[in-house]
Amino acid sequence: MPTLLIASRNAHKAGEITAILGDDFTVQTLAKFPAAPEVVEDGDAFAANAVKKATEIAAWLGSQARPDLVLADDSGLEVDALDGAPGVHSARYAGGDDNAPDDANNAKLLRELADVPDDNRGAQFHCVLALVALGQAAEVRTFEGICRGRIAQAQAGQGGFGYDPLFVPDGHELSFAELGREVKNAISHRARALAKLAEYFR
Amino acid sequence: MPTLLIASRNAHKAGEITAILGDDFTVQTLAKFPAAPEVVEDGDAFAANAVKKATEIAAWLGSQARPDLVLADDSGLEVDALDGAPGVHSARYAGGDDNAPDDANNAKLLRELADVPDDNRGAQFHCVLALVALGQAAEVRTFEGICRGRIAQAQAGQGGFGYDPLFVPDGHELSFAELGREVKNAISHRARALAKLAEYFR
Repeated sequence: MPTLLIASRNAHKAGEITAILGDDFTVQTLAKFPAAPEVVEDGDAFAANAVKKATEIAAWLGSQARPDLVLADDSGLEVDALDGAPGVHSARYAGGDDNAPDDANNAKLLRELADVPDDNRGAQFHCVLALVALGQAAEVRTFEGICRGRIAQAQAGQGGFGYDPLFVPDGHELSFAELGREVKNAISHRARALAKLAEYFR
Repeated sequence: MPTLLIASRNAHKAGEITAILGDDFTVQTLAKFPAAPEVVEDGDAFAANAVKKATEIAAWLGSQARPDLVLADDSGLEVDALDGAPGVHSARYAGGDDNAPDDANNAKLLRELADVPDDNRGAQFHCVLALVALGQAAEVRTFEGICRGRIAQAQAGQGGFGYDPLFVPDGHELSFAELGREVKNAISHRARALAKLAEYFR
């Protein structure tokens, strides 16, 4: 049974069309496509407006490339002296059940480590990517990336996000936020997991 | 180049992944899919959360059946004594550039026809459907339906929408709004255009 989208937000029209055609077509309405454009009905004849609505909505649907793959990232900071905290709670470390602003999370981490000396401030950023091919949600492939470093005594730098102003990666004296995008994207936990994903595709 | 959807609403993560993978994949973000579900990240490990996000978003995408056909309807009321008005302006007859409530449109029509006797209140509902197969927006097929009748002296009935309480179809003494859905959907302008569409598919 072909699927037919009614290019209308008028529930009455959609209801009548569905009542009449419902046995021959799987009928959808624009309620399924909230991002579809509003078509301006400025024609001076019914045919002009109907053609305009059908072609503009069809063109928009055609432009909505359907992804082949879905990639999800879960990642966070694991601090040695805190037994791996904040870990999966990284984004909501200072926020209870809700995500907290980066500054609040960074401030809480500095408080927790206030008495921890430099030689015990080791930490790692940890990223796991999950990749699914559309239509094969049962077959998930995961890729892991870890970036070792240490937690600085104070925030520094404006780049990146999250704990980047506090995290100094091994082999560097500057934080991720100071090192900038290019360096971070070459050595980060996420870059390492993505490199494995790219390798898998080659 | 495969299209890869990043199952994240975190613009920072999406930016980093795009910077790293952008040469090998066409990268999309959930900004393209505002109706995608929020995934609750309640796992106790990065891998659990990443897998959950990827599989739930992939399953949702898979459930979004893509239409084969797009159908648009433009229709309205053409009154003989008004030289075909309100016509393409039917929905905004009493509203200037904006659609007006049905009651306001019906009230305006009654005012315009206040001095018009019963034997000159002929009118027709006119519907044009435009049908496009997805990916073939250049080839539009249209189907037309007309339902003749007359404009009553007062609104009657609760069914239908638009001018239905004022429109008495030929061969009947009751308005579309009084005749109800089954009768209307058997004889209306829209039903006639849809019958031609169904015939075309047979």
